[in-house]
This record gives sequence, structure tokens and C-alpha cells, in this order.
Amino acid sequence: MAKGFKQKIRQKNTENSGFGSNAPSGRFINKDGLPNVKRRGVNVFNRLSWYHTMLNLSSFRFLSYLVIAYILINLGFAFIYYLIGVEHLTGIDKSDPLNEFIDVFFFSSQTFTTVGYGRIAPVGFMASLVATFEAFLGLLTFAIATGLFYGRFSRPRAYLRFSENMVLAPFRGSTALMFRLAPYKNNALTDANVIVSAAIEVIENGTPKSNFYRLETQMNKINTLALNWTVVHKIDENSPFYGFTEEDFKNTDIEIIVQLRAFDEVFSNTVVQRTSYTSNEIVYGAKFTPMYYPSKDNLTTILNLDKINEYQKAELPIAEEVES
Amino acid sequence: MAKGFKQKIRQKNTENSGFGSNAPSGRFINKDGLPNVKRRGVNVFNRLSWYHTMLNLSSFRFLSYLVIAYILINLGFAFIYYLIGVEHLTGIDKSDPLNEFIDVFFFSSQTFTTVGYGRIAPVGFMASLVATFEAFLGLLTFAIATGLFYGRFSRPRAYLRFSENMVLAPFRGSTALMFRLAPYKNNALTDANVIVSAAIEVIENGTPKSNFYRLETQMNKINTLALNWTVVHKIDENSPFYGFTEEDFKNTDIEIIVQLRAFDEVFSNTVVQRTSYTSNEIVYGAKFTPMYYPSKDNLTTILNLDKINEYQKAELPIAEEVES
Amino acid sequence: MAKGFKQKIRQKNTENSGFGSNAPSGRFINKDGLPNVKRRGVNVFNRLSWYHTMLNLSSFRFLSYLVIAYILINLGFAFIYYLIGVEHLTGIDKSDPLNEFIDVFFFSSQTFTTVGYGRIAPVGFMASLVATFEAFLGLLTFAIATGLFYGRFSRPRAYLRFSENMVLAPFRGSTALMFRLAPYKNNALTDANVIVSAAIEVIENGTPKSNFYRLETQMNKINTLALNWTVVHKIDENSPFYGFTEEDFKNTDIEIIVQLRAFDEVFSNTVVQRTSYTSNEIVYGAKFTPMYYPSKDNLTTILNLDKINEYQKAELPIAEEVES
Amino acid sequence: MAKGFKQKIRQKNTENSGFGSNAPSGRFINKDGLPNVKRRGVNVFNRLSWYHTMLNLSSFRFLSYLVIAYILINLGFAFIYYLIGVEHLTGIDKSDPLNEFIDVFFFSSQTFTTVGYGRIAPVGFMASLVATFEAFLGLLTFAIATGLFYGRFSRPRAYLRFSENMVLAPFRGSTALMFRLAPYKNNALTDANVIVSAAIEVIENGTPKSNFYRLETQMNKINTLALNWTVVHKIDENSPFYGFTEEDFKNTDIEIIVQLRAFDEVFSNTVVQRTSYTSNEIVYGAKFTPMYYPSKDNLTTILNLDKINEYQKAELPIAEEVES
Repeated sequence: MAKGFKQKIRQKNTENSGFGSNAPSGRFINKDGLPNVKRRGVNVFNRLSWYHTMLNLSSFRFLSYLVIAYILINLGFAFIYYLIGVEHLTGIDKSDPLNEFIDVFFFSSQTFTTVGYGRIAPVGFMASLVATFEAFLGLLTFAIATGLFYGRFSRPRAYLRFSENMVLAPFRGSTALMFRLAPYKNNALTDANVIVSAAIEVIENGTPKSNFYRLETQMNKINTLALNWTVVHKIDENSPFYGFTEEDFKNTDIEIIVQLRAFDEVFSNTVVQRTSYTSNEIVYGAKFTPMYYPSKDNLTTILNLDKINEYQKAELPIAEEVES
Repeated sequence: MAKGFKQKIRQKNTENSGFGSNAPSGRFINKDGLPNVKRRGVNVFNRLSWYHTMLNLSSFRFLSYLVIAYILINLGFAFIYYLIGVEHLTGIDKSDPLNEFIDVFFFSSQTFTTVGYGRIAPVGFMASLVATFEAFLGLLTFAIATGLFYGRFSRPRAYLRFSENMVLAPFRGSTALMFRLAPYKNNALTDANVIVSAAIEVIENGTPKSNFYRLETQMNKINTLALNWTVVHKIDENSPFYGFTEEDFKNTDIEIIVQLRAFDEVFSNTVVQRTSYTSNEIVYGAKFTPMYYPSKDNLTTILNLDKINEYQKAELPIAEEVES
Repeated sequence: MAKGFKQKIRQKNTENSGFGSNAPSGRFINKDGLPNVKRRGVNVFNRLSWYHTMLNLSSFRFLSYLVIAYILINLGFAFIYYLIGVEHLTGIDKSDPLNEFIDVFFFSSQTFTTVGYGRIAPVGFMASLVATFEAFLGLLTFAIATGLFYGRFSRPRAYLRFSENMVLAPFRGSTALMFRLAPYKNNALTDANVIVSAAIEVIENGTPKSNFYRLETQMNKINTLALNWTVVHKIDENSPFYGFTEEDFKNTDIEIIVQLRAFDEVFSNTVVQRTSYTSNEIVYGAKFTPMYYPSKDNLTTILNLDKINEYQKAELPIAEEVES
Repeated sequence: MAKGFKQKIRQKNTENSGFGSNAPSGRFINKDGLPNVKRRGVNVFNRLSWYHTMLNLSSFRFLSYLVIAYILINLGFAFIYYLIGVEHLTGIDKSDPLNEFIDVFFFSSQTFTTVGYGRIAPVGFMASLVATFEAFLGLLTFAIATGLFYGRFSRPRAYLRFSENMVLAPFRGSTALMFRLAPYKNNALTDANVIVSAAIEVIENGTPKSNFYRLETQMNKINTLALNWTVVHKIDENSPFYGFTEEDFKNTDIEIIVQLRAFDEVFSNTVVQRTSYTSNEIVYGAKFTPMYYPSKDNLTTILNLDKINEYQKAELPIAEEVES
């Protein structure tokens, strides 16, 4: 069967994907656009860029980590002050050990944040020395936090939404593979261009291997990415899918990899977003329904992002059989 | 009438504008360069990049928001401290409830800003705990503010002023569409290039639709953008406006979209600015008056930015009629 | 005379310099690479990007401005507190008005920097309110300072030194215009390319005008800009200076504009630096002396930046006369 | 001998390396990718970009410098306060000079970090004045630290590991020079391209000189740099190494310079990394062993970074002799 395709596919695999051809059955690029690769060897600290990690955390987890770190650091210093002895601190409630610890904890936090009310203050040498470094550490910590916050929200991103499915739709008397995307935030993208390639598993002398093909698109560059953009790959002689039947699409291990590049005018930076579609995400015989329309006053255009995944059935012309 | 133009326009619409052709009667690109599109669907928080929003605020509104946030946060914490009870704070003026609240408010602000005089200080567990987190919150808030300030003023921008109108001026025995632009700040732009395209509404089999055309310019790249730059689109056989009469310009729905890219040597970054001109912003039979001249000592050039919109009447050669 | 050159120069002026051709007798590009243009109109605040200004200040002036601002702000607030009345502050030395003012000044600074010892602290409503905002203002001010510091030292710059003079040197049996440049800091520049153009004043039907010519160089791109780079413009048929005599060089109003672009691997950013040479900065009949040599152990190369301007006399071949 | 190569090498040296050809016997590019050049002249402060230096420090040294600076600054100010006289400070332990100094030191640190407990506070004019500036200095210092931290961890880097050796391996019936590289962190690199050039020392009329050659690679651009990438330079007629024997490789002074450029999607920035290989780092007759394999569940690919230097012996075809 798969062998059949091999016959059908006349294009030679041109793409330098960077992925080996004897790749696993899983996808090459995950839906979120990151390559489906696990790194081993080296130790985890060298293998992780903690900055990349921090930037990719959700806001909630990022803030949680900050709070937890804040509490742990204060507990640690509180413990140190407690060991040094509460007599080295003024204004401690000495009624019982717990209250003592509570007060040194609060002293620690007042030092770490440099709020330093002074109700509790260090008198002895050791306590003062530790406080000296805690305040220093506090400021450096917030310096780092400042950098992380800025790094997180100034990080250029495309803020694109891709349709969950690709559709195989009628197009100018023949058929075409289509997906669409739209910017969903108030960013201004220009000079957008898209690169689409396909990884198709074929059987070569018995063993399955993945070949990579660049897919031509009707239009691969637009000036202003303000509305949605439906990217169209016409299935003609130049397409590796030329002559594919519905079964072929279903039964072959296909992955279509999409990369979009654009220039964000607020970040003044190039932004990139990727995604991929596998066989089971391709809908045979469907076309997307329009997702934008003029406003009532007909003075502006409304883009409804909720419709991005909407499509309707569509009759396909019969794919001309390819003589083997 | 409009149908007439269709005849006149020999160029096929080449531009991939990213805008649908069945667009509304309003403009595609607003005067400020942003696309005239409203997004719906998704919820507003996902639809807005708060960072983009903060960067686009005017300085005044940005600062106002900071002050308001500061007051609200302090009121909120003051309320909490008040509920906890003023007996958990030292140095409170207990003369009457209002004074109590005023003092907890000030205590809150002294904690949030980490100024912590200590005249008012927390003694009880709850008050200390809340203060611990308020100081922490305060520092994170200012970390974010730091990032926003930096993001706002380090954001690369072209700082260009465009002439409000386009003029249809005599040019080398024929006519040309012209507009001009000039950098108005002490920034140094190099390798500037401009892309001009036109959206023209035509009637195709009864229904109006917008076609997009790339407009050739006499010169589309200059090395140093120090003086004003008059961009010239000669109306010849290659122009979609070839053979247009004054009435044609007036009665057709035309939008001319301009994008300028340059390299800013201070930001060391590419900057982009866009604008657009509609039919009623095109002045027929006029030419721009010079806006720069040598200094008295003839050692430097003076660029007078106030003159950017100045033009004077100019006789146009009769547009040769196009045989239909 | 100048008319003579016009004959001599066979190239048509190709360059889109962005400068008018009827420019002043002064230079177009200053030695520091900024265009020699003054902007008028608009008000000064719109005309200046205060961020660009702050980035271009010398470290000394920048710090001075910060200190002065700090003192002025504190004096201002001190004055306000003084008006409100020192009785609204605890711990003020009331011995005499001057001491009072001195103490409110220090209170102000302790509030602005959020150090808040508390020896002096606000008690009344007004004083507390003002202090609330002073502390807030203080933090925002330092947030801005943080951004400026970062903006200043993270600003990508080429750190190139250009030779003060151009030399007209013998080159492969003919002559060539040469200048050289070298990176003088521990930055790593790669993929450097240079663009050289010349503005030559000619008399066209009586009036002087400046024509711009692109000057070809023997090599306009190098991989690694680690040593000095001598840029060579051979004076042959393709050069506008073809057939120029020593007098021609002296008596013509020539300006040679240089732009160098490279990629800095630490900033991971493109950096640009420009300069220009005028007639009186061109040395006729000289060649640069080498400025790098192998180290004693012959394992590394030494680049001596102090030699960048060193050249020695050199005999030039007689420029073949150009028949007019 | 070397002269022999000269014969053998038919290519003319095309590369504009930016390095002189009469370079030292040491390498041009160090293993870490920085050019092997020492700068002299100018004074060291102008020669060093302290920002570049700070960014290139190891985290440990960077933090150590901060701590040392913190201690020195506080000692300095403590000394000043001590000279002014402890009677200008409240709450000082006057039991003996040492305790006095210790307390002014702690007062200094509490001022510099703006923690300002107030247990020790300035009363006199001089002490207050100095404290006013110390707090100011403290905040500026932490503003700079914030910028440095951000600059350090936001600095775009490729995080690539190169194989320590190049191998001369059998390739399609002939031989090829190969090295490989792999990203070792959780960054996402796309559009990677590699430039390989060789510096070969030849004897020209008695004196050794280095010629630079661009080396063609089988594939010089890949879409996604997720797995390892083995870069292959086939040794055929177009290679300067055509006809080189094992001895030739051993006895010639060869340096192969590699530059890799890619786009990092987290930094949204181009990143560059370079390295070089010298004769003694080229293994004759070996091929790399695979370093990635499918995961157990066959759903993802495992890349084992520890194997990057692993190779095994491989028989080479006899290099066809080049007639001299």
C-alpha cells in the first residue's frame, strides 16, 4: 500500500528538515511548534536554559514560584537568626519560642524586602552581619525578578491561532490542502510569510522511512496580517500528494509542518510560530467558512476568532488516477 | 463610471495585501498605520496583549494608571489592616476611626514602597503577615513598572511625520502622485525603503470589489533619511492610474497604503511606520514647497518640519486619453 | 576648473543619498557619522527623543544629571514639608529654621530613596500624604534610571576606530584611495561589509551642485573583523576620480561617506558606524604602515591601535591624462 | 613538501577572512570561537567594553564581584562615617572603637540597601548628608546590577556543542571531512546555516603564507536544528584538499573555521556560534556513531549529547593521485 505512494510520489524529497529520515512514528513537530525531541546526556542543569524555562512558564506558575521562593528564603534566614539568638534582636516578643520564631521570620522578611521598620532591629554583630547580606540578597533577587518580568512580557511572540484541522477542499476545478491562521491579539504583523513542508512515510526496500517535501502555496507572503489568512496548497503535478485518494490520506503517515514568520511592529522584531498537522487532522472534502465580515456601519471589518475552526462539507472533484 | 476605470486599469492586481477584496467602504489602514480591523470572539483578556496596550498608552494615561493602581492597592491593604485591628499596629493615632484608617493607609503605603519609617509598625501576627506580603507585592509591582518604563522608552520607533495630503503634481512632462515624509526627532535613520500600494474599488459584474496594486516609485531606497523624502509615483503606462481624470480621482474609492522601513542606528533596529491616503486626501494639481535650506553660515542644512504639509497650485499637463 | 571635472567624471551619479544635491558647502555627514542637518519647527520636546538624548550623553554628564535631579527633587519636597510645618514630623531639630529645613531635606531624601530610618517620620495627615507620594515617585524614578542604565550599556555599538585620513596610495600599478578601520574593544564583529560613496561638487550650467557616486571597493565584505581592515577604492575607469590630478583632489569639494555594518556576537545584533572624509582629509601620495604583527611566541597576533593613523610617503604613478 | 600542496591546490583563495595571510603559526579562531588577536595601544579602559566583559564572566565570578564591591563600598562609607564621628549617629554601641566601627559599617549597609531600620540613624548634618548620597548611590548600584543581570541572562546564545574532532570519513565512494554539532539546551533553533572555510599554510617563493578557502558542504541550511547535524565537506575536484594524503593532512598547517547562524525562537533573535579545527584535531579514517534513536514507545526521538564525540574507525578509499 504505502509502497503504492512511493510510486505515486514523483517529487524527490528536497527538504533539509534537520530530522533524521528514520524517525519515530510520533510527530516531528508538536502541535505547539516545538520539535518532538528529548535530550539526554549532559546534566540537567547544563541541558536546561533556566531563562528559557522561566520565560515559558505560565504566569500563574511563575508567580507561585516567586512566592514559594520568598517564603523559603525567609524561613531559612529566620532559622539562622533564631540560632544566633533572639537576644541579638531588639523588640522581639519573647513570650514563647513560637512567638520568637514568628518575630524573627517577620524580621527576616522586613530585611529581605528592605522595608526595615526598625521595630525589630539587629543589635549584635552576627545578627547585623546576616541582615547585611540578607538585604543585599533581597535587592539582587528583586533585580533578577525585574529582569525576568521584563524578559517575560517583552518577549516577541506572534500570537497566532492556527485552525485545528487542515481541510482538503475543492479549488479551481482541482483540490487543495488548506489551513488558516489569524492573529488574535492587538499586535500588528506585517510582511508575513509561510513555509509549509510535508513528512511522508514511505516504504523503501522493506523499511519505512520519512521523506520531506516542500509544499508550494498559492501565496506565501502577505503585506499585512490583520485578518485571517487561508494558506492553500494546490494538489497538482508538483505536489507530492498528486493522485492521492481519500484512503491514501487516511492510511499514510503524513505530517505537514508549518512555519510562519512575520514582523511585529510593536516589538520591532521578527516573530516566528510553528505548528504541524498529522493525517488524522486532515478533513477530506470540506471548506472553511468565512470568519470576517463588514461591521454594521460598513466602516470597518470584524474578525471573529471563534470561527477559525469552522468548516462545512464540500464535494471534491474525483482525483485523476495516476498511472503506475 | 467605476466600471470605466476597470477598462482603464490594465494592470492585474498583484498585491497580496492580506485584506479581503470584498472589504468595507472604510479604509483598510488607518491614518496611524494600524489596520482597520476589529477582533471578536475569544475573551478580551486573550485578545489583548496588555504589554502592547501599555506600550501604546500616552505617557499621561500610563502614569495616571500607575498612580490610580497605587492608591487602590493601598486602600485595599489599609482596609485589611483595619479589619485585622489597629491594636496590631504600633503608633496609630487612635483619636477616632477616621484617623485610625488614615494611619493604616499611610502604614500600607510605607510598607508597599518599603520606606518603612517604623513610626507605625506591625506587632501582631496577622498584621505582620499581611505586611510581609504587601512589601513583597510592592517590590514585584515596581519590578513590573521598571520593565514597562524600559519597554516604553526603548521601543524602537521611526518617529516619522508624513505629509497629510498626497499631491498630483507635474513631473517630467507627465504627472506623478507625490507625498513626503521626514524624521522629526534626533534619531538617525539609514537604508530607508518605501513600499507603496493602492487599493482601488472597481465594479466587477455588478458588485464592487477592491483590487490591490503595487505602485512603482522613482526611488524606493535611500541611504540616509536625514532630510525630508518626497516619494514620487509617476503616472505612466505601468500605473493603475494611467489616464485617470480629475473626476476619476475624486469619484473612485482609492486608498494608497504606505509602508516605510529603515534602520535606526541608536536602537540598532529596523523600524517600520505606515500610513494611508484616501481619495479625499489627494490634492489634484499641486506641488510641495521646499522644506529645507542652507543655514546662514552655509555650513549646515536646516529642515523646517512645520512646512511638511505646504504645497502650491501647479498646472498639470492634460492626461492623454486612454482609448477604451 | 570644476567644470573640468564634470568632463572628467564619466559616471552618472547613481547614489540615492537622501541629501539634496543643492546642499551647503559644509559636509553632509559629520566625522561622528551623524548627518549634518538641523531640524526646526515642531516644538523642541517633540523634536527630541529624550531617550536617544540620554543614550548619547557621556557617562559623566549622565550621572551629573541624575545627581542634580536628585538634589532638586529633594529640595522641592523639603520646601513642601517645610510649608506644611515641621510639627507634622517627629524628631526634627527645632533649634532654628535652618536646622529645621536641613532636617526636612534629609527626611525628604530618606523618603525618596525609601531608606526611611524613622528617626524623622511623618505624623500629620498632610506630611504623611506627601511622603506617600514622594516614596512612590522615588521608586518610579529609580525604575526609569534602571531602564536608562540598561539602555545605555546594552546599546549595540560597533566600537570602531577609523583612520583620521584617507590616503591616495599606489596600488597594483595604478593608484587607490584607502582608509582603514579597526575594532578597539573586546567585541567580536563578523560579516562586516562597507559601503563607500562620494559627494563631488560640480558646476552645472553655472550653479554648483553635489553629485553622489558609489565607490567600488576591492573587497566590501569580510567574515571576521578582528584585525584592522584597509578599504581600497581603486581609481580606474569606473571611478569618478579617474584622471584626477593632485590639484583636482585639493581644489574640488569632495566628501567621501563611509558606512560599515557588522554583526556583533555579544549583542547578537547588527551594528552600524559611519564617518566621512573631506578633500582636506585626503593625503596625496602616502600609504598606511602595518599596524599588526605576530606576538613574540608567534602564537597570536598583536593589533596596535595607536598606529591606525600612521602612514608614510609613497610615490604615485602619473595619472594618465583623460582626453577631454 | 608544503610546496607540493601548492601544486595540489588548484582553487584560488577566495575567502576574505579578515585575517592577514602572513599570520602567526597559532590558530586564527580559538576553540571558543573568538579570534586569536590581542589588542594593544589605547588605554585598557577604552579597549575593554566593561559590559561585554561583565556578560562574559562566569556566574560565580560575576556574583563574587558584586559581593566584593558591596563590602568595599560599605567599608569605605563606614570609614567616612567614622571620621565624621559616631556622635552624629544615634544608637551606636560606644563600648569601644571596634564596636563603634562595626556599628557604622552596619549603618552603612543599612543605608546602602535602603533597609534603614533606624536603630542607628544619622542626626548631625554631615552624617545625614553622606547617608543621603549613600542611599542614592545604593539605588543606582542596584539599578546597574538589575541591568547586568538582565543583560546576562537575556543575551541570545546558540547553546551549541561541537564535536571535538573532525573526521575524514568514507562518503559516497569518495572521502569527506565531517564534524557535527547539536543544541544542548531547551532552545528552539530554526533556519540554521553553516559556513565552513579553511586556512591552509603554503610556501610561496620561500615564505610561508596562509591561504583561505571556502569549503562547500553537502547541505548548508536546515529548517529545524533539533537533532545533531553532521556537516559534510566532500573532498572532490572543488575541494582544496583534493588529492591530500594522510601525511599531507598531518604535515600541513590547516585550520578549519566554522560559523553557524540560526534563529532562536525564544529570543526571537539570530544567534551565532563559531569554532575551529586544526590539523591535529582531524581524525583520518573514522566516522561518527549515531547519537539519536527512537524512544522505547517509539513516539519521540532521544538525542544523547554525551555521544557527540564518539566515532569509530572506517576504511577510506585510496585518494586518487593528483598528477603534478
